[in-house]
Amino acid sequence: MTSMNLADQAPRAAARALDSAEINAHLQQVAHWQLATDARSISREFKFASFYLTMSFVNALAHLANRADHHPDLEVSFGRCKVRLNTHDVGGLSLNDFILAAQIDRL
Amino acid sequence: MTSMNLADQAPRAAARALDSAEINAHLQQVAHWQLATDARSISREFKFASFYLTMSFVNALAHLANRADHHPDLEVSFGRCKVRLNTHDVGGLSLNDFILAAQIDRL
Repeated sequence: MTSMNLADQAPRAAARALDSAEINAHLQQVAHWQLATDARSISREFKFASFYLTMSFVNALAHLANRADHHPDLEVSFGRCKVRLNTHDVGGLSLNDFILAAQIDRL
Repeated sequence: MTSMNLADQAPRAAARALDSAEINAHLQQVAHWQLATDARSISREFKFASFYLTMSFVNALAHLANRADHHPDLEVSFGRCKVRLNTHDVGGLSLNDFILAAQIDRL
């Protein structure tokens, strides 16, 4: 754990799976994100007034994802984008998921 | 039914639900799309080699959707975009879904 804001951190090239204490600590910084029941992913739903606004968000998010080389799963519809983050390489959640979540929250 | 290509048609402002004979006829022009088991939507999955290519497709699709004022539901991940079309106003499929499907196929 660190006192530095998650959103200011750079993603780690060698990710490792977080334990439940670490997950719960990081969730405090991204309190709008929901932990999946299997504790292997986090997700957040964002709502918008139009498809234009939804797509604007999706593109900003895609930029952050490409910058981090860490890519979420998205559900996109007219006024809604649900974002799901996990780290395939570790079969669960890594610090990189929480870094990207915090950066997405800044959008 | 018309002999005109679906992709060349303009969406109808007043959509009506299609019957199963009409749905089956239109599916012949968009043969890569799957009819849902409840026959209320059609979907197709597109695969890509990178998130950049996936997002390029998503943005082109968003342009078509905005032009038609008809908006699909999308599942987007690193190398995949699943597109689902239905017409909320009619509680099922209208001609507009097949027009947009044919236009998406042209991408």
